Amino acid sequence: MAETSRTGFVLPNKLWGKVIEMSKMATKLGKDDPRRIVHAIKVGLALTIVSLFYYFDPLYEGFGINAIWAVLTVVVVFEFSVGATLGKGINRMWATVIGGALGLGCHRIATLSGRTGEPILLATFVFIIAFVMTYTRFIPRMKARYDYGLMIFILTFSLVSVSGYRDSQVIQTAHMRVSTIIIGSCVSVVVCVCICPVWIGQDLHNLVLGNIEKLGAFLLGFGNEYFDGESDNEDKSFLENYKGVLTSKNTEENMANFAKWEPGHGKFKFFHPWKQYLKIGNLSRECAFKIEALYNNLHSEFKSPKETRSKFSEACKIVSMESGKALKELGATAKKMQRSRKAAEHIENAKRIAENVKLVLKINKWEWEGESLVDIVQVGTVCLVLLEIIQSIEKIEEAINELANMADFDTLSLQHPRGVVHSAIVQPIPKCVDAIVVTVRE
Amino acid sequence: MAETSRTGFVLPNKLWGKVIEMSKMATKLGKDDPRRIVHAIKVGLALTIVSLFYYFDPLYEGFGINAIWAVLTVVVVFEFSVGATLGKGINRMWATVIGGALGLGCHRIATLSGRTGEPILLATFVFIIAFVMTYTRFIPRMKARYDYGLMIFILTFSLVSVSGYRDSQVIQTAHMRVSTIIIGSCVSVVVCVCICPVWIGQDLHNLVLGNIEKLGAFLLGFGNEYFDGESDNEDKSFLENYKGVLTSKNTEENMANFAKWEPGHGKFKFFHPWKQYLKIGNLSRECAFKIEALYNNLHSEFKSPKETRSKFSEACKIVSMESGKALKELGATAKKMQRSRKAAEHIENAKRIAENVKLVLKINKWEWEGESLVDIVQVGTVCLVLLEIIQSIEKIEEAINELANMADFDTLSLQHPRGVVHSAIVQPIPKCVDAIVVTVRE
Repeated sequence: MAETSRTGFVLPNKLWGKVIEMSKMATKLGKDDPRRIVHAIKVGLALTIVSLFYYFDPLYEGFGINAIWAVLTVVVVFEFSVGATLGKGINRMWATVIGGALGLGCHRIATLSGRTGEPILLATFVFIIAFVMTYTRFIPRMKARYDYGLMIFILTFSLVSVSGYRDSQVIQTAHMRVSTIIIGSCVSVVVCVCICPVWIGQDLHNLVLGNIEKLGAFLLGFGNEYFDGESDNEDKSFLENYKGVLTSKNTEENMANFAKWEPGHGKFKFFHPWKQYLKIGNLSRECAFKIEALYNNLHSEFKSPKETRSKFSEACKIVSMESGKALKELGATAKKMQRSRKAAEHIENAKRIAENVKLVLKINKWEWEGESLVDIVQVGTVCLVLLEIIQSIEKIEEAINELANMADFDTLSLQHPRGVVHSAIVQPIPKCVDAIVVTVRE
Repeated sequence: MAETSRTGFVLPNKLWGKVIEMSKMATKLGKDDPRRIVHAIKVGLALTIVSLFYYFDPLYEGFGINAIWAVLTVVVVFEFSVGATLGKGINRMWATVIGGALGLGCHRIATLSGRTGEPILLATFVFIIAFVMTYTRFIPRMKARYDYGLMIFILTFSLVSVSGYRDSQVIQTAHMRVSTIIIGSCVSVVVCVCICPVWIGQDLHNLVLGNIEKLGAFLLGFGNEYFDGESDNEDKSFLENYKGVLTSKNTEENMANFAKWEPGHGKFKFFHPWKQYLKIGNLSRECAFKIEALYNNLHSEFKSPKETRSKFSEACKIVSMESGKALKELGATAKKMQRSRKAAEHIENAKRIAENVKLVLKINKWEWEGESLVDIVQVGTVCLVLLEIIQSIEKIEEAINELANMADFDTLSLQHPRGVVHSAIVQPIPKCVDAIVVTVRE
């Protein structure tokens, strides 16, 4: 008895805890991205609009019981972003129209073979279509864009051809289904586009270029963090933020697939080169893998002592900082759909100092008294990786320039007071070159 | 005119080319994984079975026009793997039952408020349910397992409550819908499980542990490839195969979500620890990031000259080979759901030699005449990364041991003739230690 009452008390408590946890999570989700709340409202609204067909006699008389397909369509088609909604809506419409027409055709052929032959022929047709279309769904290019359409094609074909066996008004049924599905899709798309639209193309743009900024933030802070063991910033999150870039490949690909469905919006034209974002994404991932190597060095058990690190400190800090600035600049200006020359300048600066680092690394007679090989190797690794990162950044810059040409980015940043920027960046560098040469001569 | 006829000829040619390309791709898809062909046949079969409800009078009389929901359910629910099909089927069933019941309840409440109030109340209910459920779909844990169910919940609720406004037999409609959807789901699940089932749990198991074998294959070949610039194997694909591991995170997570739905099958019990595979996957990805660093060193512009490399060659080749053997052994035995002690031995060997590498790296007075710093740093980097990889492998081993405990792996491999294996591995090592010590003494 005591056992039962105990569990009787424990369970609701557990449940209550879960409810509180869920509601906290729900609040957090809304705060993180308020568009989620708007999306939920939009779905409710679209469903309510489409259910009007049922409540108002004049509307209902046109479609009758078939109006339910419009409700169904809204629930199934309405997605978070315009691209996904449009993709699903268009897929559903073409698949219903073509699948329905083919279903009608097959139904006609089947009826010619008499009451006994009809079900056999129909079953054969359904089997063949289901087989072919299911197999087609495995083709990567079809899967990426038409997966949903192919499923709806099988669905509509089966519905029309099979129900034709019992339904004498099969043409009217098919017609009703097509009309209601078009209405449902259109209501979804209109609500999705007209009320605070979420453009997944814009999200992809921000994600890919934001990732580049994250890489930049790491490199900006890395120099001080590694060589001085400190950074101006108390918050060390910039050292971890790049981690997401390592595994964002699938997300980017999915987003690009949806983005292709979106019409022109804001600064994005209809044929915006979404594929180029995947290229930029892959290049930033390659850069992120190298940054991962730097990150590992930051936490390595073989970390060089400060004195050894200090020999490369000046130059490497500048290379890291200029690389970081270049990436930040590349990401930030491309995000605004502008071209920038400043990034090229930062890269040039980084490359110039990198030449000095290479020079030091290539010198034979170096005084390594009292320093163990492992210490030199560890800081040397950081140097080499930084040099490789510059190459990575050049590739990213090239890809972003390609994007800028494809999408006609503005050239606003060219009008920046270049002289000032230039000198501001270039000035500290000669000092450092001296510093290195001095170290070598010592 | 010429223009038209030219495009008239060009287009079909293009189309023909596309058709040929598609059919080639289709053949390749079938060859790569024949289960795809079987899957397409299974879908056709399930659809044909369920459409029998329409053709046979005794079956049809029970459900009438509602039998079409069974056809629809099969098309929508039937997925490639048992886990995905079961997940969708179960989600669809519970969501239809609960959504339908709630819809009926709301319909009853609404009818109490008279003919004018009814549509207003109904619309309000639909809006609230759509809002709450759509928002719930954003909660990550719900999205992972119940996303489809939540959608079907909105769907069924709207269908039942809205159509109740016109349909006097709303209870019977709801009942029919529930029964036909249960039939459709069950037919899908039965066909999916009984004819050549594709267990996604098994696929996840093979993917995650196969990835570890790929990492092992890289390390097995890397030593010879880097230090001698050659490998026994003409085929260099082992050097690229690990690349897939870098970006397989999303795939693994999706598979684990589906695998949770699968009942016990083969050596997998119902509560097989699928989550542990994600942990192992993440650890192998960390290892893969380090291997990416080795890969970059293999193609670096700063590659050390052979003479410098040769100083570390003996020891590093063994570390790399023992690491590779350990990973291959870990992957291969865990794939067979067996425990292995050999992996631990390989790791021990790698660690022992690694201590020597560390020793050499930590020695102060090293003769570097004629060798530039960059050359030493590059080969030193390879050494350090190899040392880090051993730590990574230990973590992977630990995670796999946890899996072995959770899933009761066999201990077959313990019965191996340990003495023989042990000596076979241990023998070449003293030589190498000598080699290093000799180099140091020179």
